[in-house]
Amino acid sequence: MTKLIILLSGLFISNMLSAQSLKEDFKPAATNQPGQLFPQVNSQGYARFKIHAPKADSVRVSLGLGGGSGTVLQKQNDGFFTGTTEGPMDEGFHYYNITVDGGKFNDPGSMNYYGSVRWESGIEIPAPDEDFYSFKDVPHGQVSQILFPSPSTNTSRRAFVYTPPSYSKDTNKRYPVLYLQHGWGEDETAWSNQGKANLIMDNMIAEGKIKPFIVVMTYGMTNEVKWGRINEFKIEEFETVLIKELIPYVDANFRTLTDKANRAMAGLSMGGMETKMITLRNPKVFAHYALLSGGTYAASDLAHKPDVKLIFLSSGSKENPDKVKQAVDELKKAGVYAVSYVSPNTGHEFQTWRRSLRELAPLLFK
Amino acid sequence: MTKLIILLSGLFISNMLSAQSLKEDFKPAATNQPGQLFPQVNSQGYARFKIHAPKADSVRVSLGLGGGSGTVLQKQNDGFFTGTTEGPMDEGFHYYNITVDGGKFNDPGSMNYYGSVRWESGIEIPAPDEDFYSFKDVPHGQVSQILFPSPSTNTSRRAFVYTPPSYSKDTNKRYPVLYLQHGWGEDETAWSNQGKANLIMDNMIAEGKIKPFIVVMTYGMTNEVKWGRINEFKIEEFETVLIKELIPYVDANFRTLTDKANRAMAGLSMGGMETKMITLRNPKVFAHYALLSGGTYAASDLAHKPDVKLIFLSSGSKENPDKVKQAVDELKKAGVYAVSYVSPNTGHEFQTWRRSLRELAPLLFK
Repeated sequence: MTKLIILLSGLFISNMLSAQSLKEDFKPAATNQPGQLFPQVNSQGYARFKIHAPKADSVRVSLGLGGGSGTVLQKQNDGFFTGTTEGPMDEGFHYYNITVDGGKFNDPGSMNYYGSVRWESGIEIPAPDEDFYSFKDVPHGQVSQILFPSPSTNTSRRAFVYTPPSYSKDTNKRYPVLYLQHGWGEDETAWSNQGKANLIMDNMIAEGKIKPFIVVMTYGMTNEVKWGRINEFKIEEFETVLIKELIPYVDANFRTLTDKANRAMAGLSMGGMETKMITLRNPKVFAHYALLSGGTYAASDLAHKPDVKLIFLSSGSKENPDKVKQAVDELKKAGVYAVSYVSPNTGHEFQTWRRSLRELAPLLFK
Repeated sequence: MTKLIILLSGLFISNMLSAQSLKEDFKPAATNQPGQLFPQVNSQGYARFKIHAPKADSVRVSLGLGGGSGTVLQKQNDGFFTGTTEGPMDEGFHYYNITVDGGKFNDPGSMNYYGSVRWESGIEIPAPDEDFYSFKDVPHGQVSQILFPSPSTNTSRRAFVYTPPSYSKDTNKRYPVLYLQHGWGEDETAWSNQGKANLIMDNMIAEGKIKPFIVVMTYGMTNEVKWGRINEFKIEEFETVLIKELIPYVDANFRTLTDKANRAMAGLSMGGMETKMITLRNPKVFAHYALLSGGTYAASDLAHKPDVKLIFLSSGSKENPDKVKQAVDELKKAGVYAVSYVSPNTGHEFQTWRRSLRELAPLLFK
């Protein structure tokens, strides 16, 4: 009973503090469907939800302060449930869903993003550095859906190919290529939808921060294993698709530079695990390797690979940043060109990976 | 009271007939999210739904027999609501949503499609002729997202550009272009997502039924007016975007044939209304005009336009097919090359428009 009282008073104090400091400058989230006023975010990073369910008894939003069970919405007289997160959310993009009388649905106000092996709701919390992934008045490249033949899986498979703005102008120029993988539960749509990889590229090219290159994003077949059994994942099937099918198709259908020095592979989370396995198993294919919240390379991994041009390891500050820093220190000692990056104030989420791409891109294809 | 009894007995007989003839060969719909077992469809076109909402009192699916209020699902002991449509649905694609205790949500089992000015659930009912829009082992073209500058609306705007499989091979060849518009409530994603325009093109090209051409799909700005006030729609803003901004951008960034004889415009429903207005107001831009469930041209409309190469008018059999047939008869009498098409067993839905594209494509750019 004492414990309960402490718990309740703790909640009370927390709510009081939040209420005192909460700024009422809420605006519709950037991730809303056209014309939708909710969900909203304020300048402090709080999110506010409003769900119409007049005959429901309970509505809960999965998004809330770290480790909690989300945000319980309160029923209003007008048939809507409303509520605000108890505190500010981390900067950047978050997946979420809502539970209505025990059933899990998407927020009808938000756009949907493929994560957790389903199309989920997503919400964008403003960040101080959001300019680098904003939709701006600069020349824009294309994101092209290709359906490439995959004899090994007996179907055609989908990939998205970012080509820079200059690609359709000077039709003789050839470009380096970055193969960029999503994480577990996501698919080939993630890097351009929630990752905004195309806008990051457009903006950096417009500012002269990088030389233009092509980015290829395909499904890493990560979801074929359950989350709890990722150690059972076998790389061979995806490796065949990528190395034997996708890369030759891209090289045949886009104006690419096809030598190893002009080919990079990067992946986030489980896509990093894939990147590590595939780059090490295929030393003649890629010269630039990047793991975004996706593990590390040891110096011994690279002992017999003298022509690796770049190792890039990143992490959110709320993950395990020391691990990537230590790994990079060791790689440097072994004479490898290695760079680490830690995204401030973010965890295992897309804001970390957007920033990682921004840091990685200028280092590639030197 | 008598009326009520008659009504109830009518429902009873209808349910009896359905129950007797219902085939238990249900399979997950082609429009389901990866790995989702529900909704399902059977070989007769019935749809079956299963929604998890253990504490809800009522779950209803908007999809049902024409004119009805949808399909009411029954609560089971395991926390799921289940139910089957009272009869077979029309062939092809349908938008739908579910109502959970009074709130409107999407079915977590289905993919989402932009219709009714929101991302809605969609379900595919098998059709006898589905081969022509199936995902097959043929060479596939690309669907490229472009973000083109639009000074008139002070932003960059999105379009999708289908390029045929040969486009990336012979890089000197130039292609005719079809500008293809969605209907009210939809957007530039509709023709490739629910319309499967890219697969229709891939399949027809592979079978040698058409010469390859480019298809451009952009947002027709139709949703800026409410459905009930469509007569207040002003074409000028979209006309400027299309004629002054998108077409020059496409001609500058893709290998197009830029003469009028190699440019067509088509649109479905409200996109047909736009097509009619824009083609007639811009006689030097397009030579091929097509309205899919989107009205008709009168002979007088074309009196001073001798170099119109084709008028194509279509409709579902459950719409107003006589109107397009009569209009085509009149156009023919006036010496215009006009063709009508009526899609069997379909209404104002995408199956009509997929078939219309199949019928239109071989007639273009002759």
